[in-house]
Amino acid sequence: MQTTKGWVDTSHSPYARLRTLPMASIALDDGFWTKWQAVNHSASLKHGYHMLEQAGNLHNFRLAAGRETGEYRGRNFVDENVYKWLEAASLELGRRPDPELKQMIDDTIELIAAVQQPDGYINTYFLTVEPENRWTNLDHGHELYCSGHLFQAAVAHHRATGETTLLDVATRMADLMASIFGPGKRDGAPGHPEPELALIELYRETGTQRYLDLAKFFIDQRGQGKMRGLGWVGPEYHQDRVPIRDASVIEGHAVRAVYLMTGVTDLYLETGEQALFDALIRLWTDMTTGKLHVTGGAGARYEGEAFGDAYELPNDQCYCETCAAIGSVMWNWRLVLATGDVRYTDVMEQTLYNGFLSGPALDGTHFFYINPLLSRGNYKRAEWYEVACCPPNIMRTLASIEQYMATTGNGGLQLHLYHNATIKTAIEPGREVGLRLETDYPWQGQVKITIDRTDESPWALSLRIPGWCQGATISVNGTPLVPAQAGSYAEINRVWQAGDVVLLDLAMTPRLIEAHPFVDATRDCVAIQRGPVLYCLEQADHDANLMALQIDETQPMDARWQDGLLGGCVVVTAQGAALDVGAWQGATYRPVANTGALPHQPVTLTAVPYHLWGNRGPNAMRVWIPRAGSA
Amino acid sequence: MQTTKGWVDTSHSPYARLRTLPMASIALDDGFWTKWQAVNHSASLKHGYHMLEQAGNLHNFRLAAGRETGEYRGRNFVDENVYKWLEAASLELGRRPDPELKQMIDDTIELIAAVQQPDGYINTYFLTVEPENRWTNLDHGHELYCSGHLFQAAVAHHRATGETTLLDVATRMADLMASIFGPGKRDGAPGHPEPELALIELYRETGTQRYLDLAKFFIDQRGQGKMRGLGWVGPEYHQDRVPIRDASVIEGHAVRAVYLMTGVTDLYLETGEQALFDALIRLWTDMTTGKLHVTGGAGARYEGEAFGDAYELPNDQCYCETCAAIGSVMWNWRLVLATGDVRYTDVMEQTLYNGFLSGPALDGTHFFYINPLLSRGNYKRAEWYEVACCPPNIMRTLASIEQYMATTGNGGLQLHLYHNATIKTAIEPGREVGLRLETDYPWQGQVKITIDRTDESPWALSLRIPGWCQGATISVNGTPLVPAQAGSYAEINRVWQAGDVVLLDLAMTPRLIEAHPFVDATRDCVAIQRGPVLYCLEQADHDANLMALQIDETQPMDARWQDGLLGGCVVVTAQGAALDVGAWQGATYRPVANTGALPHQPVTLTAVPYHLWGNRGPNAMRVWIPRAGSA
Repeated sequence: MQTTKGWVDTSHSPYARLRTLPMASIALDDGFWTKWQAVNHSASLKHGYHMLEQAGNLHNFRLAAGRETGEYRGRNFVDENVYKWLEAASLELGRRPDPELKQMIDDTIELIAAVQQPDGYINTYFLTVEPENRWTNLDHGHELYCSGHLFQAAVAHHRATGETTLLDVATRMADLMASIFGPGKRDGAPGHPEPELALIELYRETGTQRYLDLAKFFIDQRGQGKMRGLGWVGPEYHQDRVPIRDASVIEGHAVRAVYLMTGVTDLYLETGEQALFDALIRLWTDMTTGKLHVTGGAGARYEGEAFGDAYELPNDQCYCETCAAIGSVMWNWRLVLATGDVRYTDVMEQTLYNGFLSGPALDGTHFFYINPLLSRGNYKRAEWYEVACCPPNIMRTLASIEQYMATTGNGGLQLHLYHNATIKTAIEPGREVGLRLETDYPWQGQVKITIDRTDESPWALSLRIPGWCQGATISVNGTPLVPAQAGSYAEINRVWQAGDVVLLDLAMTPRLIEAHPFVDATRDCVAIQRGPVLYCLEQADHDANLMALQIDETQPMDARWQDGLLGGCVVVTAQGAALDVGAWQGATYRPVANTGALPHQPVTLTAVPYHLWGNRGPNAMRVWIPRAGSA
Repeated sequence: MQTTKGWVDTSHSPYARLRTLPMASIALDDGFWTKWQAVNHSASLKHGYHMLEQAGNLHNFRLAAGRETGEYRGRNFVDENVYKWLEAASLELGRRPDPELKQMIDDTIELIAAVQQPDGYINTYFLTVEPENRWTNLDHGHELYCSGHLFQAAVAHHRATGETTLLDVATRMADLMASIFGPGKRDGAPGHPEPELALIELYRETGTQRYLDLAKFFIDQRGQGKMRGLGWVGPEYHQDRVPIRDASVIEGHAVRAVYLMTGVTDLYLETGEQALFDALIRLWTDMTTGKLHVTGGAGARYEGEAFGDAYELPNDQCYCETCAAIGSVMWNWRLVLATGDVRYTDVMEQTLYNGFLSGPALDGTHFFYINPLLSRGNYKRAEWYEVACCPPNIMRTLASIEQYMATTGNGGLQLHLYHNATIKTAIEPGREVGLRLETDYPWQGQVKITIDRTDESPWALSLRIPGWCQGATISVNGTPLVPAQAGSYAEINRVWQAGDVVLLDLAMTPRLIEAHPFVDATRDCVAIQRGPVLYCLEQADHDANLMALQIDETQPMDARWQDGLLGGCVVVTAQGAALDVGAWQGATYRPVANTGALPHQPVTLTAVPYHLWGNRGPNAMRVWIPRAGSA
């Protein structure tokens, strides 16, 4: 990596309590995430490039560049796929050389630059299909939205490679946008939020104030109820029902919502405006009070791909779009940076290991768009989608997963997630520290941290103790510290010496989770979780009909590593029963029988990590397991 | 009523076991349905005409007739609204004179006739927007679909008024269709089924064989997987995945499915083809095995407005479109006519009194399109919809509700639903009988049937004993018969005399219903039903949060008439508890507490008929009530 900046850069954000690490400051060593990154690099990126070609996304650029003839293909926002792929590929290229990948990237950037108009404008749909209608359909036209992904790709490309080829394209488009929109110029805001956060990253990368101003302008423009919504969903679809500073209900299109909140948090990080922060906390509290699935999944409804009412969290027909999980991770991460509060890290972690990571298949070439918590066997990952926002979004998220591991701030270093890794960074200007992490997290809770480099002044190493962890212990060079509290950052402030060893042990007993009684869909059900990993039952591991299984909460559960299963994972077993529904004789409804419980057979339940479900062909699956004796 | 034919006419269908009554043979006296019909006549029809005007549906006809300028308005299928309204209005006009309504009808028919082209073609969208594209988009163009509703309106208008003004338009369009489509002519089928059943009714009204042939052709054409589907839903959306004779899974767009099955049943009634009948029974069995809500509602999913997998029956985000309930009633009724089997009448009744009748508001000017079984308070009826299929569909169904009361066949008369009514009909050619029904059904189970007219030969009076009724008694002139069996037709075959009185008493104890354990959404819940009327809890009747209520099944329930409530209805009370969820402190998920049940307060639950919900402002509602002690 070529840059001193992070994947997201809060190094100069005045209201950030934590600073992201520069890309070059952390290298993941073999472990949980590097397996996913390897597949992402070797399979997903190349598959993705092939799909960009096959779906016509690159054709659209060639068409707009005058290099091909034919018709524009796909929906009017498919440029985004090229940009998100480019962001992912650039990040991977920054990690290790790959001439084939570099050629794909360079060819694509050259093509994009060829499409750009003299005034900086770039959007293949409007250039080829509706040249006369630029900027006339902000609600659904997606010019601004796609530009945001261009900016993010450009920033990533610059940070990862040091090259400015794409950044130059991005700034010219951003300059055009800034010349058109703003106070005293045109009103309007992107129908799909994304430019807000991207413009702020572009500002962080270039120092150009007008990009930050434009992001603020777009955020301030929202909430006037002017956008048309979609179908039966009103302006809340576009996050346009109320101005952000007055908002208290997270609603409407889930991806739009969490992308907007990400941008608003970025704006707060730069401006420190309290009204924005207060709104963000109100909306986060609303989201986490009955509007997130236990997977971290956001967006309960198919209709409008939207957040539902509080506690409306269906299992089978939930939406939980992979992009919404990604957006929630982005938002929660920025709240961590703004506050250092572990509550946001907890939500981020729950989402990363579950509702996000269920997106990609193990093969790296199939992806979920929707992530249900119950499938009756007819749902599977596709190799691509007509609306293919999720696959390249997964790619760029996996390619930048290091960013969530550690930060600096308050004269110290914070570890948020745990992974085999080597970190070398400055905790303050001139104060270089180095440390090594060794762990099998999330499969095991032991983390060994060795200080490789330090100066002789004291500094604080903060270790996140997740909210789910009852029973964490920490020792330094063999001396136990006072027990660490669940849901906190354990701060070890001392003069460190090279060779110091910190041992963190996060208890990883499998545990049962229950949902609030107002969650209608989970009545008398429990979910199994171990560490940050949520579990599910798949039909493949059970002879009895998956829908007939119940769990006996009074019996102990067991966890063990299974090398050959689903690429290697920890399996949890529990005791339960399989109902015999024969007495129902095919009826769907009947008068309450009062004949006691249905006959049932004892069964050992085998639970596998939720994020690995659906990798063994069509397969019924359920996260929430009925309690023994429920009916 | 001017006709000797029924609302649906099986009087000459060779494979009908039961014949529908001629319209003039039955008159409803004041009672449950006449209240709805009165509102339908006085409020809905005039509101509907106003909405046809306001939404531009009539403007489109004037545009196509060259009488107005401007642009076509609305989706490409909105002609259907005009036709369905016309069908409803014609039926009401046939029931009693209404000069204002007659003028609306006559004006509308005159306008429709003016639009018709010399070759018989009529469709305002294609005439005004895409004149060059007639018949090029059968999947989504809806020309055939709209024609079907034209045919049904024309048949109804002719049967109810004796006039041929609209029938002439219909036959010209049908003749055009028959000249274009068919063996040796063009292939193709309607993207939305409806012409099939409508052509068969047109055949029954006119005797024109080619209309029946064309219906059969359209049915035979389906199932080749040629239709494009919609969004992520494949050819099953269009009922085009498999040929009807090979089908065994009810799937795809629910309205399309049940409309197609209605047409296929009509075709069976005319042709007696066993393969069609076998398919219908397979599909009906599949539908009634976990694919109908307890309301009778059909179509579990928002996505594609589709049937879900078996037992996928969500409460809040179910679709249960009013039109699908109507289509299911149409289909089940034809299965009754084909078989005389009470199983189909039972489904029809459950749907009519619940999942259909929840559609209209008491005021007659607001309508549900979607009929959930659980609302958290944010769902209400609208006065009209951009896709306004449901409101006029409700109107025509209410206007023809008499059809479901009685049939003749097997030398006797069958009563299916009970209502104050006067029936005078021929059970066989030359054998006129007359009878009077007096009842407060569905609020009370007593039905008094007085024979007014009969000849001296024996004939069978068959009384439906619904499947839900445990404890039906019948007496003739005070003499009890052997106890009647639930789920059967009790046949009383004797020589009748004028003045004979049959007393039927259907026990109407409130009862609790439970759903199959595989229905994930209803775990440890029960529903309250009394007679054919399903109940629900509304927030308006309870102080505690509706989502915190539980029912104690061991306590007796009570039913009583409440005159002032919701236009007068029987209310059911039960005993239960309200949970105190304070211990959750706002969390959505927590480790299983094993701290025993939440604290709770005893509460009397007040249940109101489901079909009347949502008539007291925004109001949370639930059909399925958690059992006491569930968590």
